[in-house]
Amino acid sequence: MPATAAATAPARYDIDGFLKAIGDVPVTTDMQRVRIRSRDYFWYSPVLNKQLHGKSADVVATPRNEEDVIRVAAACAKLRIPLTERGGATGNYGQAVPLEGGVLLDLTNMTGIEWQRPGLVRCAPGLKMNDLDAVTRPNGFELRMHPSTKRMATIGGFVAGGSGGIGSINYGGLREPGNILAARIVTCEETPRVIELRTDAAQKINRAYGTTGIITALEMPLAPAWTWVDVIVAFDDFHEAVQAGLEVALADGIVKKLITPMIWPIPMHFNALKAHCPDGRHVIFAMIAEQSLESFKAVLGTRGTITFAQPHDDAPGKEPLYEYTWNHTTLQWLKQDRGITYLQCLFPHDRLLESVRQMTEMFPDEVLPHLEFIRFAGRLTCSALPIVRYTTEERLNEIIALHESHGVFIANPHVVTLEDGSRHKATGADQLGMKAEADPYGLLNPGKMRSYVPVKS
Amino acid sequence: MPATAAATAPARYDIDGFLKAIGDVPVTTDMQRVRIRSRDYFWYSPVLNKQLHGKSADVVATPRNEEDVIRVAAACAKLRIPLTERGGATGNYGQAVPLEGGVLLDLTNMTGIEWQRPGLVRCAPGLKMNDLDAVTRPNGFELRMHPSTKRMATIGGFVAGGSGGIGSINYGGLREPGNILAARIVTCEETPRVIELRTDAAQKINRAYGTTGIITALEMPLAPAWTWVDVIVAFDDFHEAVQAGLEVALADGIVKKLITPMIWPIPMHFNALKAHCPDGRHVIFAMIAEQSLESFKAVLGTRGTITFAQPHDDAPGKEPLYEYTWNHTTLQWLKQDRGITYLQCLFPHDRLLESVRQMTEMFPDEVLPHLEFIRFAGRLTCSALPIVRYTTEERLNEIIALHESHGVFIANPHVVTLEDGSRHKATGADQLGMKAEADPYGLLNPGKMRSYVPVKS
Repeated sequence: MPATAAATAPARYDIDGFLKAIGDVPVTTDMQRVRIRSRDYFWYSPVLNKQLHGKSADVVATPRNEEDVIRVAAACAKLRIPLTERGGATGNYGQAVPLEGGVLLDLTNMTGIEWQRPGLVRCAPGLKMNDLDAVTRPNGFELRMHPSTKRMATIGGFVAGGSGGIGSINYGGLREPGNILAARIVTCEETPRVIELRTDAAQKINRAYGTTGIITALEMPLAPAWTWVDVIVAFDDFHEAVQAGLEVALADGIVKKLITPMIWPIPMHFNALKAHCPDGRHVIFAMIAEQSLESFKAVLGTRGTITFAQPHDDAPGKEPLYEYTWNHTTLQWLKQDRGITYLQCLFPHDRLLESVRQMTEMFPDEVLPHLEFIRFAGRLTCSALPIVRYTTEERLNEIIALHESHGVFIANPHVVTLEDGSRHKATGADQLGMKAEADPYGLLNPGKMRSYVPVKS
Repeated sequence: MPATAAATAPARYDIDGFLKAIGDVPVTTDMQRVRIRSRDYFWYSPVLNKQLHGKSADVVATPRNEEDVIRVAAACAKLRIPLTERGGATGNYGQAVPLEGGVLLDLTNMTGIEWQRPGLVRCAPGLKMNDLDAVTRPNGFELRMHPSTKRMATIGGFVAGGSGGIGSINYGGLREPGNILAARIVTCEETPRVIELRTDAAQKINRAYGTTGIITALEMPLAPAWTWVDVIVAFDDFHEAVQAGLEVALADGIVKKLITPMIWPIPMHFNALKAHCPDGRHVIFAMIAEQSLESFKAVLGTRGTITFAQPHDDAPGKEPLYEYTWNHTTLQWLKQDRGITYLQCLFPHDRLLESVRQMTEMFPDEVLPHLEFIRFAGRLTCSALPIVRYTTEERLNEIIALHESHGVFIANPHVVTLEDGSRHKATGADQLGMKAEADPYGLLNPGKMRSYVPVKS
């Protein structure tokens, strides 16, 4: 019913013309469904929640393959209609929200695997990460890293969101050389081109929110699929938990995938795990390879009490511990109390414990740390997504400034542009150059890369 | 012919009584063969070569199993005969040389595998590391680390020698938690006991030269067996090679097992590889996982020229690149020129490049660096076994002192005692305590742990 859809859509874009141009590419024009699919998890941020309220695409296209993507891209370029990509839409920065309406390109039906080789896989962007692991695991491999949303999120969305997660304690983030081997993209031009970006060049689509090209294939390196054990350790003292976690993290002989120290009262909000999170005690949530469990306990020594140790299982209906870590911690708390939000910190590797202690003491009961041990540029350090008891936007910005003035870098999750959420408040020349090539009219996810000036109009 | 043997042996020990006591445990009493087997590769050191010249056991026992070991240990304890263990005897510190004669316990016939589990193996101490890998590789695993002597050395000798090697760039050395899971030992008492040492406790036999018990089984964690590629990269500038090597080493997304920058003229002595080691150029020898080869090249960028890239193969008759690294570098040079020796350095991780440059410039053409990137206590740094043009013992000690006064730790390879070759010039309480328990009479490899005073006489 394209006619009806066009009638309800805002007149600013030629949606009728678009629908005609793309032929049989599957679309949704039902505005209620379009509006629902135009959202991601930006509502973790009270700031973004206000700012992005009501933003919606005019139509959702759901390509079946690269040819469909090319048809959509060509039509958008010709008709100058914005095009915003989405995968699982589990991001938290509104990166999948079409700020200027237009076409929402839902890539979740592109789920094919091109090939697998030992330690490598090449696949379509819409494949869910859990489904990807299910296919590579029988060959002894799994993704090197995944977000806490692994069971809902797609590999393309993860790469376009650009971060790290469970596994980054071994491999660092997606930004480290070798963690994205290649990406194939489609440009948004009247005659779209298909470009293969390999190694360094593939970084041009990492954390670009789809602004620098539409990802149609990814070549990802894999890690050995160990038998993981989910472990909870309870401590009387938070800093003892951090110290013990650091020792395990630094022990290169202990195979692990996750080490997350969390301060009380965070675990109070973990309903399903109450039996394993004693009142008033700080915890470490960890994933340890079965082969290293005994050595893990040896490093803990007499510190802490293991309250939980179960084979890791993230099949449907199971509850993997990683869904209490990274930004899922925020979600677990939000289920009971909407009065909080969060930040994204990176602690300095060369005075890690001191810095963690300083920040913990600076905001008692206002900023509640849970730390993620990660490698960053080859050094072990901590990122953190602390729970923040939210009062005002002003106070939130003050907390950010206080972190930064004490050497803790903040990737602000309360902004929609790539630049404002980045380390250097700027987009690199590589990504800007790629943007000019792939998106001359500035149609790809407009509003997210604010420093880009379209090279054509 | 025990009678003959006893006749030719020095009268200081009751070798006849020993031979009677051990029943049918296989022995060698032929003094020519005993003398040959009483040597290791201490002759890399002109100092040790002088000091250890002519040292020999009186008899070699070659146990078939743990019961044989127990019989030998009991006999030695009863008759107060020294007992020195050996595996492949590829060590360089004289650790397998029986300073006070007596019994040489050759463990190379104890080669059984007790069991394999995913990422773990339990085996007898005399198994050669290459044979061990051959057995675990079909299951997707290999040893986490091995010395450059992997094709001759035994797993027991490696652990008793206590070091690291190829693979330590990922896992650190044997000293790191998790890198030795367990050891079973036999004590040297009239009624020997069999003791299982797990995790921390297993460190009591790490780098103890067999002084703290006779290892009869080892439980070792394994690494995923990647498809490795042997790579040589040639550089005009040594420090550019070190810088490039460091970047690869720090790139946690690039899977590697070895990165060895070597200064010219070291590669001049690599006869079989002359075609790949251009005149006057410094090199990196590396082992890179096939899945990471493209990313490795991307990190090199325009630096260096790849002159060699072949699938790694250390089967008999092949020439793996690792046999040009670590202390094999010394051997390659010694094949042509006996005028050199070597040192063992550990550079400070927090000013690595600066320190390497300083030491390189301090001894031009006298101390020639080849560096090994390793993890040490969770930090990336370099160890090194530089070639030293040898003049006098005095000058050698001066070079050592100059390194140490500039913050480069030296593990002196020109001494026979554990204490003198160690970081703190002392034996830890753990090892001393274990020694008292396992070797009350001070019979196990006497002369190597000089701070031990026998608790019984």
